[in-house]
Amino acid sequence: MADTNDLFNKEVFGKRNFDALDRIYTTDARILPPGAPMISGRSAIKEFWSGMIQSANAKSAVLESIDVIATGDGAVEIGRATLTLEPNAQMEVKYVVYWKNEDGRWKWHIDIWNANS
Amino acid sequence: MADTNDLFNKEVFGKRNFDALDRIYTTDARILPPGAPMISGRSAIKEFWSGMIQSANAKSAVLESIDVIATGDGAVEIGRATLTLEPNAQMEVKYVVYWKNEDGRWKWHIDIWNANS
Repeated sequence: MADTNDLFNKEVFGKRNFDALDRIYTTDARILPPGAPMISGRSAIKEFWSGMIQSANAKSAVLESIDVIATGDGAVEIGRATLTLEPNAQMEVKYVVYWKNEDGRWKWHIDIWNANS
Repeated sequence: MADTNDLFNKEVFGKRNFDALDRIYTTDARILPPGAPMISGRSAIKEFWSGMIQSANAKSAVLESIDVIATGDGAVEIGRATLTLEPNAQMEVKYVVYWKNEDGRWKWHIDIWNANS
């Protein structure tokens, strides 16, 4: 989990390597972003993050797990994230992710977040 | 689930019967509302909904399940909600709820939502 969260920060946000999202989201993952309808499927999710990160000129997304509940064949994580946008803005976000194993790797299957203020 | 979602709409929003939340949330549930920090524990959650419903003069919250994934000892639900506020405003919301069985009843253990626009 720490590895995946780190990948999201350093590869996706840091290096804008959007193909790293293949290792983060399941093929049929869904994200529920604030201010937009739900987005289904990894290719649409890749478009979302690519557009969002480039338009906001985002630099990093540091994720921190607050709690993880193991379920039968997955896990529910509550966490917080600090997003850094250029030139000099930070945003505090909290999230819930439902993790699922896909091809031997734990990935985000459902991902929803909102801002703290 | 349909029964609990209905209770939230008709009792909590419709009749402002906040004690009905005892049948909706687990004792140690957590909610992650947009624009505020996470709130832990049913008594704090009851205060949140009581304050929110009264200050927004909310009338109803019609919940509709989009998908339910059964996990080991719980379930993850994705849904949408239409909130009606007085005098004449509607708000479209999407949510993820992690359901857990408490005392023989299925309840919301983690509840996070955000607006569609």
